[in-house]
Amino acid sequence: MTKTNPGNYFEDFSLGQIIDHATPRTVTEGDRALYGALYPTRFSFWSSAEAAEAAGLHGAPVEDLIGFHIAFGKTVPDISLNAVANLGYAECRFHRTVCVGDTITASSEVIGLKQNSNGKTGVVYVRSTASDGAGETLIDWARWVMVRKRDVDAPAPETALPELAKAVAAEDLKIPKSLNFTNYSFAAAGEPHRWGDYEVGEKIDHVDGVTIEEAEHMMATRLWQNTAKVHFNSDARGGAPRLIYGGHIISLARALSFNGLANAQMIAAINAGAHTAPAQAGDTIYAWSEVLDKAPTSAPGVGAIRLRLAACKVPAGEMKLKADDGKYSEGVLLDLDYWALIPT
Amino acid sequence: MTKTNPGNYFEDFSLGQIIDHATPRTVTEGDRALYGALYPTRFSFWSSAEAAEAAGLHGAPVEDLIGFHIAFGKTVPDISLNAVANLGYAECRFHRTVCVGDTITASSEVIGLKQNSNGKTGVVYVRSTASDGAGETLIDWARWVMVRKRDVDAPAPETALPELAKAVAAEDLKIPKSLNFTNYSFAAAGEPHRWGDYEVGEKIDHVDGVTIEEAEHMMATRLWQNTAKVHFNSDARGGAPRLIYGGHIISLARALSFNGLANAQMIAAINAGAHTAPAQAGDTIYAWSEVLDKAPTSAPGVGAIRLRLAACKVPAGEMKLKADDGKYSEGVLLDLDYWALIPT
Amino acid sequence: MTKTNPGNYFEDFSLGQIIDHATPRTVTEGDRALYGALYPTRFSFWSSAEAAEAAGLHGAPVEDLIGFHIAFGKTVPDISLNAVANLGYAECRFHRTVCVGDTITASSEVIGLKQNSNGKTGVVYVRSTASDGAGETLIDWARWVMVRKRDVDAPAPETALPELAKAVAAEDLKIPKSLNFTNYSFAAAGEPHRWGDYEVGEKIDHVDGVTIEEAEHMMATRLWQNTAKVHFNSDARGGAPRLIYGGHIISLARALSFNGLANAQMIAAINAGAHTAPAQAGDTIYAWSEVLDKAPTSAPGVGAIRLRLAACKVPAGEMKLKADDGKYSEGVLLDLDYWALIPT
Repeated sequence: MTKTNPGNYFEDFSLGQIIDHATPRTVTEGDRALYGALYPTRFSFWSSAEAAEAAGLHGAPVEDLIGFHIAFGKTVPDISLNAVANLGYAECRFHRTVCVGDTITASSEVIGLKQNSNGKTGVVYVRSTASDGAGETLIDWARWVMVRKRDVDAPAPETALPELAKAVAAEDLKIPKSLNFTNYSFAAAGEPHRWGDYEVGEKIDHVDGVTIEEAEHMMATRLWQNTAKVHFNSDARGGAPRLIYGGHIISLARALSFNGLANAQMIAAINAGAHTAPAQAGDTIYAWSEVLDKAPTSAPGVGAIRLRLAACKVPAGEMKLKADDGKYSEGVLLDLDYWALIPT
Repeated sequence: MTKTNPGNYFEDFSLGQIIDHATPRTVTEGDRALYGALYPTRFSFWSSAEAAEAAGLHGAPVEDLIGFHIAFGKTVPDISLNAVANLGYAECRFHRTVCVGDTITASSEVIGLKQNSNGKTGVVYVRSTASDGAGETLIDWARWVMVRKRDVDAPAPETALPELAKAVAAEDLKIPKSLNFTNYSFAAAGEPHRWGDYEVGEKIDHVDGVTIEEAEHMMATRLWQNTAKVHFNSDARGGAPRLIYGGHIISLARALSFNGLANAQMIAAINAGAHTAPAQAGDTIYAWSEVLDKAPTSAPGVGAIRLRLAACKVPAGEMKLKADDGKYSEGVLLDLDYWALIPT
Repeated sequence: MTKTNPGNYFEDFSLGQIIDHATPRTVTEGDRALYGALYPTRFSFWSSAEAAEAAGLHGAPVEDLIGFHIAFGKTVPDISLNAVANLGYAECRFHRTVCVGDTITASSEVIGLKQNSNGKTGVVYVRSTASDGAGETLIDWARWVMVRKRDVDAPAPETALPELAKAVAAEDLKIPKSLNFTNYSFAAAGEPHRWGDYEVGEKIDHVDGVTIEEAEHMMATRLWQNTAKVHFNSDARGGAPRLIYGGHIISLARALSFNGLANAQMIAAINAGAHTAPAQAGDTIYAWSEVLDKAPTSAPGVGAIRLRLAACKVPAGEMKLKADDGKYSEGVLLDLDYWALIPT
């Protein structure tokens, strides 16, 4: 019997199945430092312990995407090791800010299954939940992936498709209990723009670009314990360049968005995300954002802003996501729809 | 008088000589994070503070090889700065797990000397000991290196060869006092395979490969304060690619061995190690293991398993270490014989 | 209105103006680890918590240049985003050692202005101060940069030139209050050379060289939150290689200087610094030092030594900074004049 992990194939999943993912991961100050070395992030809450404290975030909180990447990485060996494609995610909510010392565990429930008509693959829908050591929910999200069948003759499961919201409703956002922007320092954050200064439909070119190196994306991907071959093994790519982990592009684009969105400090939800083209070392990544929606929240001084974050491997230019034919424009890498929290 | 360190030459060593190595080094959470960024490690004890606690490992313990690489690095400026070749090591025992906050110091005793017949070099045998600030032994090991003479006319010392065990006997393994695998979580660790599931002679292909980058191996090597020129200076290699520090290959292979040996969490001893060929940036590293021996231990639920860990720069294939002529096969980089601790 | 930061242009500065810089930055153990991974530093005070304690440095102090690079990075978005050239710095004093947990903020006062005769640019002189959360000064320094005008027709300000010392006088050095080298361990530090062993005029070739990689210099530069385009964006360089941040060269050279100056543990002041040529990935960096001056200090066992630290991309050779024509020699990258503290 082989002792290595073959991953799950489409016929290994069943509706309602619960999968507890391996390798809990404790967050440390080292993660914060490496995140800052790998991405040009300058959001004051994660750079300054004092800025976080002033906002009611206690206990050495770290950037939201650190928690997300770790939690996501936990699910890979069970859910997507035999994936043909990551099709999408939805309803991702950040329940409380991950702190240094939190040990993140993750589990997933299979919430949908649909075999493809070719009989060789199927789509698996899971809802995954990341929790701390005490069982408190940190982040949850839905995700669907196309997975190979091991045995094409395995019978197709009954088709079951989950209902997933196009976007998390503003009233469903989880706001950390103690969050309070009453004493928010715009000077410390680096920009004066408040919630009220952004208009729906407004686009922001984040200007700066960062060229990707092989060592950087591999270090990042390992840090999240995501060990998919295509990111690490040049042999496995048949001589083609290694593929950059999608989370690396998300973090690069989010960090670049500081320039123009320095006060959109926290991610409250990810509504949808599409990696529209692969990236590779040598590409220079640019980003732009579009304001999609705005909503108040119950926390003092805290507003919610819904943003599209686009990453591209060419300067943002006209900030058009799609060409006239409705397809993503050449050079667009990421189309991410998320809610951020920003002072009113 | 030059103020830079010329290192020791063969005639500078004398039998029984004690050398206290410089630059004590305090272990931090940053080391853990960097280790996880540089190597695809996922062993639950070092990833999760809770998993370590549950096994009786208190105080933020770190992966055994972090301690080993740091301790080994301390000895380089005094022992092997003028080495022609690192010939081998033996009897390496891990006395207790290194923790965040431990300040590692190292000293070596010369336990053997033999001038080579060419009169230009000699073999120096040392037993090195790494201790914490309170003087408690963390790791000790024997090592022998071939060192140049400064003056070929210096008289040869009396030949003295130490007796070194081919392998640490199972009953001589140091087991951390509080170690207890009674509450071990196989689910958290990621694989179900226990001590009893492995058979002597069994081979495991760890499947995954990782391509090495210059920035990564240099960062790793600096982290352990090992500053041998060949790893850092492309000029010093006369245009040839920089050589990868052997410890980088050990850590890569050990991390890859997670896939199939996820429960072999701790290294108890290194019996022998040979770096059979050099590696360079661009090489993709694979690993396989062979079970060499098994033994019980006195700690509750803890078994010992002796493993050969091979690293190669080609896929493991038939997992043959040597060709029919008895020489290491093309592409084999590392042949490491060690004892690990694994739940029974 | 654009929401991204356009930076300040020459006409935006006025004499006496105070600028509070954004994004306070808390120092962590992750910074120490990354510093050690990026630079071959081995100074015992920063490697060993015990060595620092023994010298009266409490509370997890970190290498002086970590504080300097962070503090300097804070000033870039306001002072030098539109700089044509960094012309120099002076009177940089380290008031107390930065420790893990310190949150560094920075502010600058405009102390001089001079429009250039071409009417397109001008020189801005600032005195910048880095403080901890309680407002205690950590580091201060003067710096002057040539900045573009936004509008060439903007009126020239009255010329005002500050008086800046050629070097910080020995009696003006700030010595941390509790500093005491009475129990200094030369064995732990790795070299026996005391203050009295160095002679004014003495030169030391630090021998070792380190080849620079793109991933490394970009990680370092991001770590200090210095996001100048030329360091990150290969497009922005029109195909030319990215420029290495000057601070990366300073840290590399300073770390290399360990070999021969292992006891010059702390930087007390930077008197002047010139980046005499650009560096790029693939360059191998060497360093040499010259003893410029020596002075006693009021702290027990602590002497001050003034050093010129030169970095070059060729081996140090004759350690000549300038050719016969008075210009910096081919290959010289850095000419840094600083005061260090060393046991007497």
